Amino acid sequence: MADCEEVQVEVEEPATKKARVQADIKECGENLHTVLKDFSEFQQTRILSDSSQRKTICIEGSFNNREGKAIVLLEKKPFNEEILKNTLNSNCVLQKEFSNDIYGFYEFFPSVKYSGIKTTVIYPATEKHIRKYQSQDIHLIEETPELYESVTLPHLQKEKFSLQWVTNILEHKSETDRVVFEDPSPEIGFILLPDLKWDGKQIEDLYLVAIVHQRGIKSLRDLNSCHLPLLKNIKGKGIKAIEEKYGIPCSQLRIYIHYQPSFYHLHVHFTYLKYDAPGIHAEKSHILSSVIDNIDLMPDYYQKATLPFVVKETENLFLEYERRGIVRKL
Amino acid sequence: MADCEEVQVEVEEPATKKARVQADIKECGENLHTVLKDFSEFQQTRILSDSSQRKTICIEGSFNNREGKAIVLLEKKPFNEEILKNTLNSNCVLQKEFSNDIYGFYEFFPSVKYSGIKTTVIYPATEKHIRKYQSQDIHLIEETPELYESVTLPHLQKEKFSLQWVTNILEHKSETDRVVFEDPSPEIGFILLPDLKWDGKQIEDLYLVAIVHQRGIKSLRDLNSCHLPLLKNIKGKGIKAIEEKYGIPCSQLRIYIHYQPSFYHLHVHFTYLKYDAPGIHAEKSHILSSVIDNIDLMPDYYQKATLPFVVKETENLFLEYERRGIVRKL
Repeated sequence: MADCEEVQVEVEEPATKKARVQADIKECGENLHTVLKDFSEFQQTRILSDSSQRKTICIEGSFNNREGKAIVLLEKKPFNEEILKNTLNSNCVLQKEFSNDIYGFYEFFPSVKYSGIKTTVIYPATEKHIRKYQSQDIHLIEETPELYESVTLPHLQKEKFSLQWVTNILEHKSETDRVVFEDPSPEIGFILLPDLKWDGKQIEDLYLVAIVHQRGIKSLRDLNSCHLPLLKNIKGKGIKAIEEKYGIPCSQLRIYIHYQPSFYHLHVHFTYLKYDAPGIHAEKSHILSSVIDNIDLMPDYYQKATLPFVVKETENLFLEYERRGIVRKL
Repeated sequence: MADCEEVQVEVEEPATKKARVQADIKECGENLHTVLKDFSEFQQTRILSDSSQRKTICIEGSFNNREGKAIVLLEKKPFNEEILKNTLNSNCVLQKEFSNDIYGFYEFFPSVKYSGIKTTVIYPATEKHIRKYQSQDIHLIEETPELYESVTLPHLQKEKFSLQWVTNILEHKSETDRVVFEDPSPEIGFILLPDLKWDGKQIEDLYLVAIVHQRGIKSLRDLNSCHLPLLKNIKGKGIKAIEEKYGIPCSQLRIYIHYQPSFYHLHVHFTYLKYDAPGIHAEKSHILSSVIDNIDLMPDYYQKATLPFVVKETENLFLEYERRGIVRKL
């Protein structure tokens, strides 16, 4: 679905939470999840998003006699050895659609117990939840240096995104047990830790992030020849730490920087090359070796280049560009 | 699964085919697909590949009393309105795994008729089929200009890939009815037509390719300031043709060049920005506006840059790089 980096961890004050839970119970009789047994009381309102490739769907609806909205997320499960062993046999129906030469096209019906669908029910769902799961129109903007200075940069300065959580990591106040490697140098150092999307177990979806110690580098746009030692240090030591800990050689790593990033403190992504990680498309990701090479070729490359980036129609940055007639809603 | 561009259309001579089919029937009693009713006779040998993200799996095996190998491809089906209407009700079991606050995590079991799996059976399968479906280790190579000259270019010259099918399109000898737009100029002209992966119907997976009329431009590596009029012409007229025919504005198009390309005659890809098309990762695709901008900044950018590319362990180009100790097998 969407790039999960955009999912902010929402922290609710304990007192607020207690009050809300009590209100919920008063309002709904009891927590939905203690009584939900099937979907007989669910009324579908609309499809928020779906992916035929990933076999997921996200539905907005409500439950009879319960106020407010609910979201149901369904995702087909991947195949595994156990399912194959128990379904590729005589107990399951195979229905031919057509065949052509050596190719036969069928529909295959495993028994109910092997057809489970991963299901998440969110209730009560806020408007924020709904926006998060709703499919949105996106646009590609070709950001010239002039547009960066006149539109993107003033927008960033106005929005004043909080970087407190980054500071907490860099100052060892949180996530200390998740740190895979640290180079403490204030100039060229960084902290390498698993991305929130990765459980740190199987290398098939390996995803780590290096967050630089140096403050004030907002994004790719700020990088110049002063930063070459920093970038080369991240590349070299990041590769070494991952090879040592996970046994993956550098030729099987994708190392890159997002533009626009999800937070404006320089960080570098490391993913397993075979992993189709979110946000690795050419219009968003810049391979670190090319970033280093570009600055080697032209020290002010990132101050001179036109950089494409993707923006959702609901983002404030889109509205800034729309107001100037550079992009338009459909 | 893999980038489908690599799938070649195999044409078998009618006489060869007839002989083979007769031999098949003699050998196997009858065509497997006329009798296959379930998987009771199927013996699984190994998993060739799987994707937990796309919910697909590809299995090699054999059928009892039938010679040779078989391939079974399974793919979970996407959700649709009809399935939702018939499953999100009281007939289907919902089993709670755990819940936390407003979030409930369940497994949901629809009835058998709504759990069909798309199934393809290939029998008899050749080694070529098996290689095609087998997951392969891939590596990222950082190609410096020196490596291009000493390894990649000599390899391309040695392999002498046939471009006859490209010539056929450019000379209007084939696929003439598929052409969406043509600028006939021998210098800056091109032919725009749907990629083989796109059926030309819904814009959700829109995919067109512009093939240049000018011969001899092998890839991104050859591009310099002489080619700016060609590249700008493709961008401008390609966008206009797509907007006119399909109603998609340029801000919703991803326009890019592959490196390495699947064939060494310059071509540009146009896909719908929301479409997660194969081969759009940052290590393979170069956004056309950035290509133009790079050459504007530095006329010989693509002769000086280090370009990353991905190669499979079974490709001859990998072997060339391995022989020089630049990359190694796992």
